Amino acid sequence: MLTKWLIERKRDGAELLPEEIQALMRGYASGEIPDYQMAAFAMAVVFRGMTARETAAMTDAMMRTGEVLDFDGWPRPTADKHSTGGIGDKLSLVIAPLAAAAGLAVPMISGRGLGITGGTLDKLESIPGFNVRLAIPAFRRIVRDVGCCMIGQTETLAPADRKLYALRDVTGTVPSIPLITASIMSKKLAGGARTLVFDVKCGRGAFMTTLDQARGLARSLIRTGQALNRRLAAVITDMDRPLGAAIGNAVEVAEAVEVLRGGGPAEVRQLSIELTARMAVLSGVFVSFDEACPALAALLDKGEALEVFKRMVAAQGGDVRAIDNTARLPVAPVIRDLPAPHAGFVADLDADKLGRAVLALGAGRRLATDSIDPSVGLSRLCPVGTAVEAGMPLAHIHARGVTDAGRAEKQILAGIVIAPERPAERPLILETLDSPA
Amino acid sequence: MLTKWLIERKRDGAELLPEEIQALMRGYASGEIPDYQMAAFAMAVVFRGMTARETAAMTDAMMRTGEVLDFDGWPRPTADKHSTGGIGDKLSLVIAPLAAAAGLAVPMISGRGLGITGGTLDKLESIPGFNVRLAIPAFRRIVRDVGCCMIGQTETLAPADRKLYALRDVTGTVPSIPLITASIMSKKLAGGARTLVFDVKCGRGAFMTTLDQARGLARSLIRTGQALNRRLAAVITDMDRPLGAAIGNAVEVAEAVEVLRGGGPAEVRQLSIELTARMAVLSGVFVSFDEACPALAALLDKGEALEVFKRMVAAQGGDVRAIDNTARLPVAPVIRDLPAPHAGFVADLDADKLGRAVLALGAGRRLATDSIDPSVGLSRLCPVGTAVEAGMPLAHIHARGVTDAGRAEKQILAGIVIAPERPAERPLILETLDSPA
Repeated sequence: MLTKWLIERKRDGAELLPEEIQALMRGYASGEIPDYQMAAFAMAVVFRGMTARETAAMTDAMMRTGEVLDFDGWPRPTADKHSTGGIGDKLSLVIAPLAAAAGLAVPMISGRGLGITGGTLDKLESIPGFNVRLAIPAFRRIVRDVGCCMIGQTETLAPADRKLYALRDVTGTVPSIPLITASIMSKKLAGGARTLVFDVKCGRGAFMTTLDQARGLARSLIRTGQALNRRLAAVITDMDRPLGAAIGNAVEVAEAVEVLRGGGPAEVRQLSIELTARMAVLSGVFVSFDEACPALAALLDKGEALEVFKRMVAAQGGDVRAIDNTARLPVAPVIRDLPAPHAGFVADLDADKLGRAVLALGAGRRLATDSIDPSVGLSRLCPVGTAVEAGMPLAHIHARGVTDAGRAEKQILAGIVIAPERPAERPLILETLDSPA
Repeated sequence: MLTKWLIERKRDGAELLPEEIQALMRGYASGEIPDYQMAAFAMAVVFRGMTARETAAMTDAMMRTGEVLDFDGWPRPTADKHSTGGIGDKLSLVIAPLAAAAGLAVPMISGRGLGITGGTLDKLESIPGFNVRLAIPAFRRIVRDVGCCMIGQTETLAPADRKLYALRDVTGTVPSIPLITASIMSKKLAGGARTLVFDVKCGRGAFMTTLDQARGLARSLIRTGQALNRRLAAVITDMDRPLGAAIGNAVEVAEAVEVLRGGGPAEVRQLSIELTARMAVLSGVFVSFDEACPALAALLDKGEALEVFKRMVAAQGGDVRAIDNTARLPVAPVIRDLPAPHAGFVADLDADKLGRAVLALGAGRRLATDSIDPSVGLSRLCPVGTAVEAGMPLAHIHARGVTDAGRAEKQILAGIVIAPERPAERPLILETLDSPA
């Protein structure tokens, strides 16, 4: 009777009280409130939205349906980064060890890929032996000993979120800023980090396709985190084009390792440094962004971040030899050049089309139950602005067979524009928010 | 996957195709589509509405999830009336036998009361022995032999509607004109009547409280019925005040019997005649409304409708002696006058407040599982406009005990306004619609 009344009030546009939202989330986690009532509630939220107070209450309530990690009293400040997901986004693999090398503790709870966007856990699992399903005590120990650890959401962290996320996926209730905010934030808060930096991806290859949508989510995340006493920043970054030169799983790990060695694509290196700098400054490890950036660049160049990454891989059961020599990562049976059809400049790379091509190669999941192939994908993708001659390779295709490779070739070419003139440069970071504007 | 996509399209405001709506309803009836997806879909419909084509497709699809009765080839034209429910609405008990006496066949599928509005089935069950749960063959036989029969929705009639109705009740998805239309209409169409007359109640004691809402539902019903080849009319009638002088179950049967004997409150008689006249004219039994009304009045005055009613009661297992002598209907332990607190004119009767008082006496259900007391209620309620002296009875309270009666007295007085001046007369019929305006 109470639940029905709460659904009706949300439907009619009323603001629910924090204790009412708590009762909903607790009842849902415990199974007292059935899926059909939560589905109707979620759809009402899709249409009516939630106030800042409601979103914060929902985040807090979802977090409290499970274990909440606490690193208070540890010598290192805790910080975490979250990306809303994009094509070629391997930043977590660089940022977690880089932040740890800078003196932060990074307890990172990551996700799997679904749809065209890859997931950090899937990428990590392409490292032979790497275990993302650690229990909380092991997770805490590795964060303490290594400085960072990356695992998936456990049974005990924000169980209401896990349940609601699965329900939203099949009931058309995914696109709602407050529901997305509460889902992202409840997991991250349960992970125990005091500082959070959000990378809100925006464009054709992201969930948020317009700057307005991305801004709405970024503001909602900041507002909610502040209401719950976290230090936060959000950076809106371009995802019209894929990030870096590799899209897939093993190929992205290899690219992250290049960046950790001081090399790799400039934009991956730069964005890794800038996001880590924001984590470090908010945590008080550096006094300013301008001081942090060169210091973090040095940690990459000296291989210190790579050392942390290797220690984390080892601690999580992964084969460190595959990091020392990335040729030991899973290799696709067919690796083939994609020749440029004519000369010109790479004028556009469509993140959505390239993401779908890589999904079709087997690197991603259409359904949550699909298994992925760690070896397939794209590498050495020419960045926008590259001058190419006809026949010059635009990318390497890693495929399970020649048929797959042939099909991918067409799909990938459909996502690449080669024009007679060099395109104007576009910024990768579109906006930075420290407080809700 | 398909279901999710249909939910998303409805959420985004698209019009679904008839075959898509059919697949939804069939899948829901068969259990393939789970409650949580249907709940999300229903909430999306609450916000987005449905086009006329969608509503007709949904009605037709829900009807086709079960048995559809067919009286084609019978000598009498089939007709039915449906009321959206109000306080003191006993019209079905008069209209079904009156229409049958006029030469129509009335296969009436009725409902139970929920909330403050009473249900026809509950009223009929206050007649000792009366059985509203007949199987379809018996129902058809009685319609043929007597001219009318009144039963509840069976397992086999529009099962998708029964399931969806229960779901909507607990998911805040009741207030939606297309969903209400499909629910009402699918049951009525499955019942087999070719002519349908709708009594859309409007006011404090009805589900539709404003004329705009009532008009919206009336138009939707007419449009949908026309799309599905029925002859229809809709009448919007006032439910700011209760209908007639009795509210309850046995007390309403007694009032209906008075009307069938040619007496009873003028407004109950008049509305019964006018609604039946519309059924009869649409069915071709009379050529005009003006011809039908006096003919139907004569059927009441000569007791012919009462004879049909008694035959129906007998055919459905009821004790006809309780019709011949309504004192044999269930009698409440306490029957007490409600004295007027001061002199004046009865200026207003609040249908909502009086309905709630009668609900509290035990005549209705708060929850679908509540049982009702057939004996309790109100009778001899003074109509609006009555001149009263202090201490004169405003009504009789039928209660289970003196405590109940005392509490009801206060609640009922709160719903009656006695003013120094005679109030202006107000029409009972607010609007009549034959085609979608």
